Amino acid sequence: MTTLEQMGAKAKDASRFLMTAGSKKDIALGAIAAALCENCEEILAANKIDLENGEKSGLTASLLDRLRLSEERINGMADGVRQVAALPDPVGRVLDGRTLKNGLQIEKVTVPMGVIGIIFEARPNVTSDAAALCLKAGSAVILRGGKEAFHSNMAIAKVMRDALEKAGFPRDCVALVEDTTRQSATELMQLSDYLDVLIPRGGAGLIKSVVENAKVPVIETGVGNCHIYVDKSADIEMAKNIVFNGKTSRPSVCNALETLLVHKDIAEKALPVIKAELDKKNVEIRGCDRTKQILGDCVVSATEEDYRVEFLDYIIAVKVVDSLDDAIAHIQKYSTGHSECIVTSDYNSANEFTARIDSAAVYVNASTRFTDGGEFGLGAEIGISTQKLHARGPMGLNELTSSKYIIRGNGQIR
Amino acid sequence: MTTLEQMGAKAKDASRFLMTAGSKKDIALGAIAAALCENCEEILAANKIDLENGEKSGLTASLLDRLRLSEERINGMADGVRQVAALPDPVGRVLDGRTLKNGLQIEKVTVPMGVIGIIFEARPNVTSDAAALCLKAGSAVILRGGKEAFHSNMAIAKVMRDALEKAGFPRDCVALVEDTTRQSATELMQLSDYLDVLIPRGGAGLIKSVVENAKVPVIETGVGNCHIYVDKSADIEMAKNIVFNGKTSRPSVCNALETLLVHKDIAEKALPVIKAELDKKNVEIRGCDRTKQILGDCVVSATEEDYRVEFLDYIIAVKVVDSLDDAIAHIQKYSTGHSECIVTSDYNSANEFTARIDSAAVYVNASTRFTDGGEFGLGAEIGISTQKLHARGPMGLNELTSSKYIIRGNGQIR
Repeated sequence: MTTLEQMGAKAKDASRFLMTAGSKKDIALGAIAAALCENCEEILAANKIDLENGEKSGLTASLLDRLRLSEERINGMADGVRQVAALPDPVGRVLDGRTLKNGLQIEKVTVPMGVIGIIFEARPNVTSDAAALCLKAGSAVILRGGKEAFHSNMAIAKVMRDALEKAGFPRDCVALVEDTTRQSATELMQLSDYLDVLIPRGGAGLIKSVVENAKVPVIETGVGNCHIYVDKSADIEMAKNIVFNGKTSRPSVCNALETLLVHKDIAEKALPVIKAELDKKNVEIRGCDRTKQILGDCVVSATEEDYRVEFLDYIIAVKVVDSLDDAIAHIQKYSTGHSECIVTSDYNSANEFTARIDSAAVYVNASTRFTDGGEFGLGAEIGISTQKLHARGPMGLNELTSSKYIIRGNGQIR
Repeated sequence: MTTLEQMGAKAKDASRFLMTAGSKKDIALGAIAAALCENCEEILAANKIDLENGEKSGLTASLLDRLRLSEERINGMADGVRQVAALPDPVGRVLDGRTLKNGLQIEKVTVPMGVIGIIFEARPNVTSDAAALCLKAGSAVILRGGKEAFHSNMAIAKVMRDALEKAGFPRDCVALVEDTTRQSATELMQLSDYLDVLIPRGGAGLIKSVVENAKVPVIETGVGNCHIYVDKSADIEMAKNIVFNGKTSRPSVCNALETLLVHKDIAEKALPVIKAELDKKNVEIRGCDRTKQILGDCVVSATEEDYRVEFLDYIIAVKVVDSLDDAIAHIQKYSTGHSECIVTSDYNSANEFTARIDSAAVYVNASTRFTDGGEFGLGAEIGISTQKLHARGPMGLNELTSSKYIIRGNGQIR
């Protein structure tokens, strides 16, 4: 057995304990939250090593900021764990049921997944956030974080495992892969004897590697090439506000706007208004020929690649389209299936867009930035699924469960 | 583009038509049913070629029977298509919804998967059954059948595609892979640009190949190493009937019983009664040492492999266990997560078993043979999922859909 297989086997055992742990899970989560606060100094000391290493290896200021912990941030992590504990138990809900003619009583109930693998990148707070959600959902979790946060993640995982043990839980309910090489990520993607599902949280590169290598069921998350289409009937003021919010309120996240499509009949009026707003944040515009005709030479010529890519930056691709059909065709071609929006005052255009756009979240007259578990009222979020199997869009605790049928009889045979 | 990629691109286009086809899908299904009956002779002629080839290549009598079509069987296929048409539309159901404080109206609605791939083996009737279910669920389907049924499948697919075209639908709503080499199956498993989900229907070999090779989301189906545990408090007469039914009513299917576990306190009384019943069908018993002590030398010594394998035959593995805990531990070790049963008259044992056994269907005092979409009242079945993601147990039309969020606002920004 490899180290990872041993970890998988231990996690599988722990998952059997969790399966029937019921509300005791909340006690364990409370213990974890308290332990995070109590061991704040140890965690900060480990974080300091990561920060020093990060500075030496030339991490950008924004990456260093994502990596940095403080007493306040650790208290925030503990609060997050307590909030998860306070949510309703997603396990044991009866989803469906009936009594068959032969007297069999059949019910479909939610059950834990078993063992969940999570691959994530720079932020150390994901260690406690993700572990808390998996525990609450009755599953053991194997975490594999990025090398930048290695010492922080190790310290946080140790605190959680110690707290679990003190609370009478197997410490292997939470495990952290100590090897942060690419090899260990690939091995985790292929741990099919032990892993019931893998959730990669990261950029396009990680998702691509998972699609190529995974031999366990996967929930893809996060890549968002999000579009907004400004219909000819749009309220230009509203369109301007939604574009500005979608593009500039937080350009680095997956629900940020990447491409603006504008109907030709409104482009001459709308584009200058939108551009003036985007100029406030120095957003670079990469446009089609018609966009350039309207906005002038300040617009960079958009390439095919510009329509395909997730900029995650103060850059927006713009295209003038002839019709709603053309806008839909463009989105069908380039979308990653995350979030798209139409701004319109036309009832039929709104219906057409919501019916034909096949993305996790389809908006009429609202910012794509709302695609988020917290905003949607799911209580907490483990990620945003861009696939169609099992979960689509923001995933909360319910999406971390599976189901089984329980059938009660008194001797029925077929 | 390879031939399969071209097929995938056409199927994706067709799926966009189907996405908004609504109740027109039922008209197309009616046309397909009528066309199957009208073109019965052509289909039978193609089937005759497969049967002749099968005889030449030495297919077993039971495989030849599965392959054989008749006017009656083709009418049965047409009836199956009509029954699917009569089911409620699984697309457009509102699963959840709320109005947020900021006024956003959010709803989660079911939508088609898009393009579904199905790999199946000998039975040509799967061609129309599976296609009808996928169409009703609003998805295009790419079918890849076994080489034994090649001519039959081609004829059935042609009839369906012609009927679709006459009904005003794209004929590429249904496609059949003409290449029946192993290579084409592998290529289909990796068609990630076009396939939204792959459902392999077949034995352990196919499932293993899919786990190894697939780069698209998969719903695993069908491998069932099903267990029955006869508790010390069991009604022996009931246990006897359920074991006999589970093992002998149809040994070749995935919900058939493979292993019998018996509590030591009841083994001496129960095993001879059960054996006498199984003898009526000459079931071979492979038992542990204690089983042999009770039943004598007619029992073959069970190997580790006997507890692991799906016999799909008149063979049963038997083991005497010390406790409910031991029975559960055995099942956790060897089960494929399909269907397991406890026979008991003890309330706590029943609860313990249903809570701790992590399989798609967990029975108290009833035969595992009930694990079936029709028996469960799902209306129709595309297969039985043995994985935890998306669908578990018998899958009907609802399990062939995905969902999306539609969010309606009036200018909200975040």
